[in-house]
Amino acid sequence: MSVKITNKEQVQSLLGQYDYFLFDCDGVLWLGDHLLPHVPETLNLLKEHRKTVIFVTNNSTKSRDDYLKKFQKLGISGITKDEVFGSSYASAVYIDKILKLPKEKKVWVLGEEGIEKELKELGYTTVGGSDPVLVQDGVAFDPEHPHLVELDEDVGAVLAGLTLNLNYLKLSITMQYLLKDNKSLPFIATNIDSTFPSKGKLLIGAGSIIETVAFASGRQPDAVCGKPNQSMMNSIKADNPGLRETPKRGLMIGDRLNTDMKFGRDGGLDTLLVLTGIETEENVLKQPKDVAPTYYASKLGDLYDFCN
Amino acid sequence: MSVKITNKEQVQSLLGQYDYFLFDCDGVLWLGDHLLPHVPETLNLLKEHRKTVIFVTNNSTKSRDDYLKKFQKLGISGITKDEVFGSSYASAVYIDKILKLPKEKKVWVLGEEGIEKELKELGYTTVGGSDPVLVQDGVAFDPEHPHLVELDEDVGAVLAGLTLNLNYLKLSITMQYLLKDNKSLPFIATNIDSTFPSKGKLLIGAGSIIETVAFASGRQPDAVCGKPNQSMMNSIKADNPGLRETPKRGLMIGDRLNTDMKFGRDGGLDTLLVLTGIETEENVLKQPKDVAPTYYASKLGDLYDFCN
Repeated sequence: MSVKITNKEQVQSLLGQYDYFLFDCDGVLWLGDHLLPHVPETLNLLKEHRKTVIFVTNNSTKSRDDYLKKFQKLGISGITKDEVFGSSYASAVYIDKILKLPKEKKVWVLGEEGIEKELKELGYTTVGGSDPVLVQDGVAFDPEHPHLVELDEDVGAVLAGLTLNLNYLKLSITMQYLLKDNKSLPFIATNIDSTFPSKGKLLIGAGSIIETVAFASGRQPDAVCGKPNQSMMNSIKADNPGLRETPKRGLMIGDRLNTDMKFGRDGGLDTLLVLTGIETEENVLKQPKDVAPTYYASKLGDLYDFCN
Repeated sequence: MSVKITNKEQVQSLLGQYDYFLFDCDGVLWLGDHLLPHVPETLNLLKEHRKTVIFVTNNSTKSRDDYLKKFQKLGISGITKDEVFGSSYASAVYIDKILKLPKEKKVWVLGEEGIEKELKELGYTTVGGSDPVLVQDGVAFDPEHPHLVELDEDVGAVLAGLTLNLNYLKLSITMQYLLKDNKSLPFIATNIDSTFPSKGKLLIGAGSIIETVAFASGRQPDAVCGKPNQSMMNSIKADNPGLRETPKRGLMIGDRLNTDMKFGRDGGLDTLLVLTGIETEENVLKQPKDVAPTYYASKLGDLYDFCN
């Protein structure tokens, strides 16, 4: 059963036991645009103890640079780009390092600027994504739209993620690329979260959008780059040899059992669930032993609070 | 194995054997906006022989009145409203007759005007659908949109079908109604075709759009009203007692094995596949005996051609 963090001794024990602290962002550090209590203080506490902190997020609408701006805007200072792992970055790295897609090939993007920026940073040209010529809502759907009629022969992969600017045209063009050349273009998903929490509501998640084009084309993604998939963990471990060698020196902190906690557990890390996101204490306590988080806490800021 | 219709004697035998001729529309009578050869002549031939003709379509973007206009525009005259069964009409009838939704309840529509018109004709008020306040593309998604923040308490059912004007807001609001009251609002799908053929391409079908909100809400539709589901066949049989009593006096003509042919077969009718739609002769001939169409023909107009 998961141990609840309730006092200073437990926090000191965590500080002794772990060197790497991996964090989910939304629901842990902030809720939408609201910083959660004593988050900067807790991060400072960890940095004072020379801990490595790593931020791991499935939200592909933002690039790592966008995340740095968000940290700064919310008053969390001193975070560097190499401490941030987003699903858009993980997907771009996958296309580059695993697929080894030649740089003269383009990537068709069903998604937003976060994905485009990370791909561009690795030297790829993107098609689709936030291109304003694909905005169609409010006018009749154009079955003769040039992007639908003539596919770009240089496109060598399809990358799909969360987009709040989807429409029938973008989905239908994505479908054409997925069907193209006997369904042979690689189909990559940033993540497959079915829901996207926003302002206290559950909205349509990346996985639900990807489900549309998957169902329509009769294909499933060849790779999923976000949590709980371990390709993101492997990238993190590649940058942090100490974590690779001794994963039990790492603690994954998140608010979702089926993504964050699974991600940490599958990577061999211990796990800490915070109740500021979508899970309830009741639900945490009824998890079977093999999937229960190692620890849970009311909020991340408790780590600071109990020490002061 | 399916018998190919190739001569006058076979056509005369069909005219002797069947009283009810059920037709899929797109791929059989027309392709998009192009009438297929000798379709009006074939329909006239059947009417001269006092056959009952019934048009059965899964495209929910049109109401029966819209279909009558399309028949007229393409030069097919003399069709009446009671000869047309669309999935939007079938869905409205389902909500009225099977669900028995009280008329003071509203229906949330993820779909187009075809659905709205049929529901209105049966006395229901709709929310969502083609409401222009839900157009959002080209502007930032508004998580505080009034339709998202405040659900309509009078909504008593969710009806989803094909829409070429979808966006993140409409999908997310649909999701809220599907989650509402512990997922208890009835969830009806007009049809679940994964693809929508248009201008020689396969675009996103109703089933793929419905898959998004189904995956996001963790629900499957409680009822699917289009072909091959038999609720549409039961409505047709209710209007045509002769077909109900002797289904083998009916012939279902269509261009899709998995919807049209299955629809006819499951209803106890014989079936005729035409090759003007999405199936190939090669594919028809390799169907196992239990699912092979009774007959197939190059085109519907052959029935007229062979007699002249």
